[in-house]
Amino acid sequence: MQVNGKPYRTIWPTADHAVEIIDQTRLPHEFVTVRLENMRDAERAIRDMWVRGAPLIGVTAAYGVALSMRHHASDAALEASCGVLLAARPTAVNLRWGVERMRAFLAPLPEAERAEAAWREAARIADEDVEINASIGRHGAELFRAMREAKQRDGRSGVVNVLTHCNAGWLATVDWGTALAPIYAAFDAGIPLHVWVDETRPRNQGASLTAWELGQHGVPHTVIVDNAGGHLMQHGLVDMVIVGTDRVTARGDVCNKIGTYLKALAAHDNGVPFYVALPTPTVDWTLQDGVQEIPIEERAPEEVTHISGLCEDGQVRTVQVTPQGARAANYGFDVTPARLVTGLITERGVVKANAGAMEALK
Amino acid sequence: MQVNGKPYRTIWPTADHAVEIIDQTRLPHEFVTVRLENMRDAERAIRDMWVRGAPLIGVTAAYGVALSMRHHASDAALEASCGVLLAARPTAVNLRWGVERMRAFLAPLPEAERAEAAWREAARIADEDVEINASIGRHGAELFRAMREAKQRDGRSGVVNVLTHCNAGWLATVDWGTALAPIYAAFDAGIPLHVWVDETRPRNQGASLTAWELGQHGVPHTVIVDNAGGHLMQHGLVDMVIVGTDRVTARGDVCNKIGTYLKALAAHDNGVPFYVALPTPTVDWTLQDGVQEIPIEERAPEEVTHISGLCEDGQVRTVQVTPQGARAANYGFDVTPARLVTGLITERGVVKANAGAMEALK
Repeated sequence: MQVNGKPYRTIWPTADHAVEIIDQTRLPHEFVTVRLENMRDAERAIRDMWVRGAPLIGVTAAYGVALSMRHHASDAALEASCGVLLAARPTAVNLRWGVERMRAFLAPLPEAERAEAAWREAARIADEDVEINASIGRHGAELFRAMREAKQRDGRSGVVNVLTHCNAGWLATVDWGTALAPIYAAFDAGIPLHVWVDETRPRNQGASLTAWELGQHGVPHTVIVDNAGGHLMQHGLVDMVIVGTDRVTARGDVCNKIGTYLKALAAHDNGVPFYVALPTPTVDWTLQDGVQEIPIEERAPEEVTHISGLCEDGQVRTVQVTPQGARAANYGFDVTPARLVTGLITERGVVKANAGAMEALK
Repeated sequence: MQVNGKPYRTIWPTADHAVEIIDQTRLPHEFVTVRLENMRDAERAIRDMWVRGAPLIGVTAAYGVALSMRHHASDAALEASCGVLLAARPTAVNLRWGVERMRAFLAPLPEAERAEAAWREAARIADEDVEINASIGRHGAELFRAMREAKQRDGRSGVVNVLTHCNAGWLATVDWGTALAPIYAAFDAGIPLHVWVDETRPRNQGASLTAWELGQHGVPHTVIVDNAGGHLMQHGLVDMVIVGTDRVTARGDVCNKIGTYLKALAAHDNGVPFYVALPTPTVDWTLQDGVQEIPIEERAPEEVTHISGLCEDGQVRTVQVTPQGARAANYGFDVTPARLVTGLITERGVVKANAGAMEALK
C-alpha cells in the first residue's frame, strides 16, 4: 500500500541481501524504516515489536533464518538460529510456523545451497501472504460492489460506510491486510467508501495504525471511540462491519480483539452485515464453542491505566488516566458467537459462519 | 461520601456564608476544594466545569443566586445575577431550573429578607437532591440484597458484581449520586460487592471520577476498557448493570453516555439485568421514541484524538493518539431502547421501562 505516495510492503529484501522493515512502534507519529543485517536484528525486531501481526511476524522470522544462513549454514547454526528466533515471542503461532517451515525446507539441503535457497524461500512465504490477502480483497470487494448497487437502487448515496475494529491492515501482514484488504481493493476499484475506525482501546491500534495506513493510502475515514458504533448503526450510518480475527472455530465462532463482540451485537440488532476476513489457516478445526474453549489472554493493567501519544513538546509521552493505585483488568480478546456473523471472507471466497458452509474451506 | 476518611458533599456552605466546592477538573490526580465568595465565583465554577453533573450544576447556580443576594438584593440585582448564571452553560437544563426556582422564590419577597431566604432555599435544594438520591440508593440496594441471596441459593459466591458506565456518582450530584447510590447504599449495608468501572471514552469519566470516588469510599472496583464488558458478561462475571441517564422517554427509552447501548445489548444477550437509576424529573413525558426523537450532541473531535493524564514528571499533560490531521467524530450520547432495560430505579421505587409501569412515576 502507499506511504507518502510510494508503494510499500511491511518487509522487503534489499539488493545487497539485507532486509528492511517499518519500525511500527514509531507509528503513527513517525515513519521510520529499519535495516536488518543479521538474524539478531530480526530477533530484536520481533521481540521489541517493531513488527507485529501474525503473518508479518512469521515472514520476519523466515527472513531471520535466511539472514543467518548467509553467515553460518551448518546444521548446528540452523538449529541455533531457529532456537533464538522462536524465543523472541514464544506464544506467537505464526512465528513458530515460519521458523519450522524454513527449518524443514533447509535441513535436507547441502550447506552450500542453503543461503540462496533460504533467501528464495523467505521471499516465497512473503509472496504467498500477499497473494492470500489480495484474494481476500478481491472477494471482499464484491460485497462493496453489491452494497453500493443496493444503496443506489434504494435511491441512497452510493458511498459505502464500513466500520472496522483494531488493525487488521497491511501493517499486520506483508501487504493488503485481512479486514482492510477488501477496503483497499474496493477503493482501488473506484467504489466510493468511507471507513469508521474504532480507536480500539486499550492499545489504540485503530486510532494509531488503522487511521495512519488508511490516511497514507488516501482512503476516507473517521476515527471514533469504541463506544460510538452502536449509535452510528442505529442511525443508518454503517452499511457493513469488517473485522479480522486471531482464531475461528470449526462452527464459526470468532475470537478477535476485545470489543468485537459488542459491535457484532449492535450490527445484529440493526440489521447491519457483520463480516470477518481471514486466511483459511486461521480456522482451528479442533475447536467448536469459542466462548467456552478459547482461553483469553489477560495483559498488563498498565495498558488500561496509561496511554501514550504525542505531547505538545514533540515527544511521545505516557500519561496515567486513573487515580493513583486504581486496579485495572485487561482482557485482550473476546469471542463473537457464529450466530452474529454474516459471513467469513477468505482467500477462497465468502462463506457463512457454520460448520456446513465452512466445509468448503477444508 | 468519604474522601480521605472524612465525609463530604460536593458543595457545602461555610459558617461565614461562603460556599465551598471540589474542583473536579483536578480529579483524580489532586483533591482540591475551592471557596466561592460571590456570584461571579459560582458562575466561573459552572463555566469552567469545576462542578459538573446536572444536579450539582443546579445547586451551584442556586447558591450563586444566594451569594449575590448578600451583596445586592434589589430586583435589578436579582435579574442581573440570574442572567449571568444562566449564561455560564446555556444548554444545561438543571442550571436553568435552579436559577428559575430561586428567582421565583425570591422575587415576591421584600429585599431585606432575600439574603437569608435565598441561603435557606439553596440549602433546601441541595438537601432535596440528597434525599432523592438516598432514596434511589435505598430502593437499589434491595436489588443487591436480592441478587446476593439468589447467588447464595445457587451456591455461588455472594459477592455481587455490578458494571457501571460513565460517572453517575456523588460527584455529579450533591451526595450519593444516581447510578452509584444503590452501590454505596448496598456497600454501607455490608453487602459484599465489586464494581466493574467502564473507563468511558472519550472523556474517561469512569477511569478518573468513578474510580476515584469508589476508591475514596473504600468500594472494591476494577477499571476496564469499554470494550471489555461483553466478554465479562459472557463469562458470568457481571451480575447486573446500573447506569445513570440524562433523559428517559415516556415509554422508557434511555439516553445516556455514548456506549451505554452496547452494554445493554450485551446484558440482554447474556441474561444480565440492566438497570437505569434516575430521579423521576429526568423523564421527559413529551418524548416516545428516543432513537428518533432525541438529538445527540456532537462534541469537539479533540476529545477523541487527545487524552489528558498525569505524566511521569507530575504534570497533567495532553497527548495525541491519532496521526497528524486524522479526522474524528465525537457523539456524546446514545439511546438504549426500553426493550433492553430491566428496570428504572427511582426515588419512588423500581419500575419497568414501559409506558404502563411508568404511570406510577407521574
